[in-house]
Amino acid sequence: MNQRGILTVISGFSGAGKGTLIRELLSRYPQRYALSVSATTRSPRPGEENGREYFFVTKEEFEKRIRDGGLIEYAQYVENYYGTPKDYVDEQLEAGKDVILEIEVQGALKVKEKFPDTLLLFVTPPGAAELENRLRGRGTESEEVILNRLRQASREASFMDRYDYILVNDKLEVCAEELHALISSQRLRMSANAAFITQMKKELERYCM
Amino acid sequence: MNQRGILTVISGFSGAGKGTLIRELLSRYPQRYALSVSATTRSPRPGEENGREYFFVTKEEFEKRIRDGGLIEYAQYVENYYGTPKDYVDEQLEAGKDVILEIEVQGALKVKEKFPDTLLLFVTPPGAAELENRLRGRGTESEEVILNRLRQASREASFMDRYDYILVNDKLEVCAEELHALISSQRLRMSANAAFITQMKKELERYCM
Repeated sequence: MNQRGILTVISGFSGAGKGTLIRELLSRYPQRYALSVSATTRSPRPGEENGREYFFVTKEEFEKRIRDGGLIEYAQYVENYYGTPKDYVDEQLEAGKDVILEIEVQGALKVKEKFPDTLLLFVTPPGAAELENRLRGRGTESEEVILNRLRQASREASFMDRYDYILVNDKLEVCAEELHALISSQRLRMSANAAFITQMKKELERYCM
Repeated sequence: MNQRGILTVISGFSGAGKGTLIRELLSRYPQRYALSVSATTRSPRPGEENGREYFFVTKEEFEKRIRDGGLIEYAQYVENYYGTPKDYVDEQLEAGKDVILEIEVQGALKVKEKFPDTLLLFVTPPGAAELENRLRGRGTESEEVILNRLRQASREASFMDRYDYILVNDKLEVCAEELHALISSQRLRMSANAAFITQMKKELERYCM
């Protein structure tokens, strides 16, 4: 059965380990998943590669994509645009790959509104103290940055209830397998099997004639 | 975390292998699952044991349970009552066990109406021809009984869309693991983690003061 892939949006607190979790999932099941790469108008930082971290485009190109409906969602931060290109996601879903989008809460809810079949996942550490530990553990950020992240987390927490599932990222391997089981299960949703169900009904009707 | 268990209702065509599938699940994860046993007013058949196949009760006892709200759902076939006792299910869910109910479509939809968090699963063979093969393969039923079952399957198929998930029972072991992954995933639903989420929000609020 060449089933269309599942679109999964992953959000979560800064420090919850979303990036590590997604990398772990992709390295475990490279044939199964495709990671969506965002487009942005900001300049590449040293070491960043076009098509890997981001697709780097001009402001004009980005605004043309907005007008053409070429973005699943987009947002503007300071003077730069960030968005999710539609063609890549569509191609991968059509090819039967499950596509992962890592985006913040506002964008995630916009995607769900537009595509109600999207699986919305929220990643969190086991508790606030652990979140603080992880943020401090990086050892690279100032006290102010850490406190800002924690306040940001508190604001994001008010949106958690609007997600479908929660993933408590305690042990990375366990969490990656939970994530994989969760996405795999979505392939068994009734709505993802409409063609099979229609066929089954048609075949069974023969016995009623 | 002593999380409440998940209530799962399994329906499916006669010949889909529901019974075998459920036994396989329970033998793989005996600590995790509890199978709900129905109450009935019909007489035990040779070899049937009270509390194993059914709880055998009198008509008066059954009707008292109906009046007392002691049944999750019930139905009357010919002159006999069949129903799902509430206490056992509640006890098991409270103890953190995932409870499996095997009931037909009408009853399943009644349960979902009453308890919207119930996971509704529909089990089907990979196609109508395979269903017919399995029914014939038993070698114990008359042509008329087989055709009746297939017509019954056709009527039941019209309710499939109202289920949450479909399980195609092709290979028993694969299907049992899909079933287990599906139920396990439901423990990650936002609605199943309200206490954790409330606690997380409360802890994070401290950073905003």
